[in-house]
Amino acid sequence: MDMAADREQRVPRVVIVGAGFAGLWAARELGRGPAEVVLVDRQNHHTFLPLLYQVATAELEPEEIAYPIRSIVRRLPRARFVMAEVQAVDLEARRVTGDGLTLPYDYLVLAAGSAPHFFDIPGAAEHAFPLKSLEDAVRLRNHVLWCFERAAREPQEARHRRLTFVIIGGGPTGVEFAGALAELLRGPVAADYPMVRAGDVRVVLLEATDRLLPGLPDRLGAYALARLRGMGIDVRLGAPVSEVTAEAVRVRGGEPLAAETVVWTAGVRGAPAAGRWGLPVGRGGRVPVLPTLQVPGHPDVYVAGDLAYLEEGGRPLPMIAPVAIQQARCAARNIRRQLAGKAAVPFRYQDPGMLATIGRGAAVAHVWGKQMTGFPAWVLWLGVHLVNLIGFRNRLLVLVNWAWDYLFYERAVRLILPSPGRG
Amino acid sequence: MDMAADREQRVPRVVIVGAGFAGLWAARELGRGPAEVVLVDRQNHHTFLPLLYQVATAELEPEEIAYPIRSIVRRLPRARFVMAEVQAVDLEARRVTGDGLTLPYDYLVLAAGSAPHFFDIPGAAEHAFPLKSLEDAVRLRNHVLWCFERAAREPQEARHRRLTFVIIGGGPTGVEFAGALAELLRGPVAADYPMVRAGDVRVVLLEATDRLLPGLPDRLGAYALARLRGMGIDVRLGAPVSEVTAEAVRVRGGEPLAAETVVWTAGVRGAPAAGRWGLPVGRGGRVPVLPTLQVPGHPDVYVAGDLAYLEEGGRPLPMIAPVAIQQARCAARNIRRQLAGKAAVPFRYQDPGMLATIGRGAAVAHVWGKQMTGFPAWVLWLGVHLVNLIGFRNRLLVLVNWAWDYLFYERAVRLILPSPGRG
Repeated sequence: MDMAADREQRVPRVVIVGAGFAGLWAARELGRGPAEVVLVDRQNHHTFLPLLYQVATAELEPEEIAYPIRSIVRRLPRARFVMAEVQAVDLEARRVTGDGLTLPYDYLVLAAGSAPHFFDIPGAAEHAFPLKSLEDAVRLRNHVLWCFERAAREPQEARHRRLTFVIIGGGPTGVEFAGALAELLRGPVAADYPMVRAGDVRVVLLEATDRLLPGLPDRLGAYALARLRGMGIDVRLGAPVSEVTAEAVRVRGGEPLAAETVVWTAGVRGAPAAGRWGLPVGRGGRVPVLPTLQVPGHPDVYVAGDLAYLEEGGRPLPMIAPVAIQQARCAARNIRRQLAGKAAVPFRYQDPGMLATIGRGAAVAHVWGKQMTGFPAWVLWLGVHLVNLIGFRNRLLVLVNWAWDYLFYERAVRLILPSPGRG
Repeated sequence: MDMAADREQRVPRVVIVGAGFAGLWAARELGRGPAEVVLVDRQNHHTFLPLLYQVATAELEPEEIAYPIRSIVRRLPRARFVMAEVQAVDLEARRVTGDGLTLPYDYLVLAAGSAPHFFDIPGAAEHAFPLKSLEDAVRLRNHVLWCFERAAREPQEARHRRLTFVIIGGGPTGVEFAGALAELLRGPVAADYPMVRAGDVRVVLLEATDRLLPGLPDRLGAYALARLRGMGIDVRLGAPVSEVTAEAVRVRGGEPLAAETVVWTAGVRGAPAAGRWGLPVGRGGRVPVLPTLQVPGHPDVYVAGDLAYLEEGGRPLPMIAPVAIQQARCAARNIRRQLAGKAAVPFRYQDPGMLATIGRGAAVAHVWGKQMTGFPAWVLWLGVHLVNLIGFRNRLLVLVNWAWDYLFYERAVRLILPSPGRG
């Protein structure tokens, strides 16, 4: 790749680590010059994480929320993509290494994202299903369907534990997954398994605090609670989990709740790689940055997205896509400013609002200072996610799948593929 | 599942092992009574194998050629599905066991299908990629794309072996895969990897005999040869492979051909499970059957599809979907006849013709005694495969993907997912 040669010609190079929302948007902003951009990711695709729960509930196929990074990068004349796992970052020598490659940089954007955060709850990391990657989603989908295949062959008394699905965490992911799972189980799965009685199936949502959707106004949390309970979901508030085993979940001070499937949506932390790379790691495993998104003492190193720790109004910025995209733009602008000999400017978050879907025709939205619930919020949610889903073809296929589900109460994706974790 | 109870009431039961074309069609024919039907498969989905090569070449998503078995079975009032791997068949006690289940039967239909046949060529089973299951297809797709990711980072001289793709076998699967692979590599992949020169990429098709598509008339084999060579594929006839290593393929009497990727499409054999179950296994690992498709000495046991060995006009019937479907219908009819106290009738194959696609707008067809090539044959191929693809939604999504590819010379599925076998 002639990297050494380029370097000698003193073409400034920006290395971007991670092709999630932050990394990809930074590459888009910088990929037309004047610097050269190298985008590094261990995967060859970007994953549209906000729809991951739909893969886990057999609504969408994994390919529909993934997009080849090279398809995006090839439209950027000054950018290229390298598929590699970054093993080390040398802030002094200004280079990134991994998978046998060495990439010197003039500016570095670290956008390695986040990982599940189990808060040291015993057994959670071992026994709960995370929902942070396409592999996680496919594994969870396979497992849910496998539970029904097992239950179909078992006597009635064994089914209760086998068909209890516990979701830990009442934030947007937990609420969206719980709603979609309940619809899957009460719709197409119920039709596929007539021998399983509705009473044998249970979806439980455990939330440690006293309300759902803590980032949204109280009224929207209450609406979500009423809707989920109306769908037959056993929502328990003020129920902090103290232990997860292979057999059950225990809520602090309570009896164990026997369940074959426990899904973890209760927390995320900065990607553990940051610590291995020797970066200073603070609260929630995130890297504290200056308001300009630079790492203190390293004006050539930016952190953007979930990995960056920055407070605004005394509270840490949330680990969500809009923050990641806006930070990527800010970091890109600051690098361009530095290249032009100007000073970096601080990041300001423009909150576009929050959306969460609960089920067919039901969602909550807090946008433009307004609160919306029900069908209008759901239509808004559909539109926002379709528009933001990368790639026109993906949008088309997702729309076909959604329309199909909506019209026929059917999900065709309920396959156990390629079938890991059967045992 | 109250199987013992049913049994005592003497409701005759047909157990069908395998939910490929033969097993599924047998279940459809018998699933409305008078017998009770239990369909057993180790997967929860039927796979439309004729389009597997399109999954391997990133044209279709795995979900688009798979269909949940329960969706089909639930429309059959007297049929049910059990997801289990059959470990033993007891022809005397008349029962099938596996995964902790025991299924007594009155009639048994064995439709376990086929597996790759490597003809004891040294190294073939270890180093060549088979193409017989969805997992195979996804693994091969991942590997092909991974080769390009590797090549993108390597010096020019390393690329030749890395980007040599050898396909062994010039039958329909080899021809279809070679054509689709060449189109993938010369189209979207070339656009994604501008640093790779066209001359670095090589697709080689090795066929042991002196012609392609041995099951079709000479003219069609010659047309396929000319089209594939016109696409830049290095087709070598009279090239029997004598060894496959991790580094290369050796043709008998020739120099080793250095290649990172070797794909095996040169032969299939009856599913090895038949031998483990203690059935008599003959030529090609298949179970010899009477003309009525019954196992000699066991009038209650039928074999249908690839696993059945039966000759017609002095030649064994081919291992293809039309034979499987017709045999399933014949076996079902014979079981109904036996239930009514009548004798089983012999199987007669009605040859509907053969089709193979080569590339964009190019195919060969031998139907209704006519030979067709080029665009008309391709349109016929499209129609036949779309009509036969199970499930209306799958057809719709496949059509969207095909139209997309055709219009934009683009394949959006080129993802490395979930990324097994990277090393």
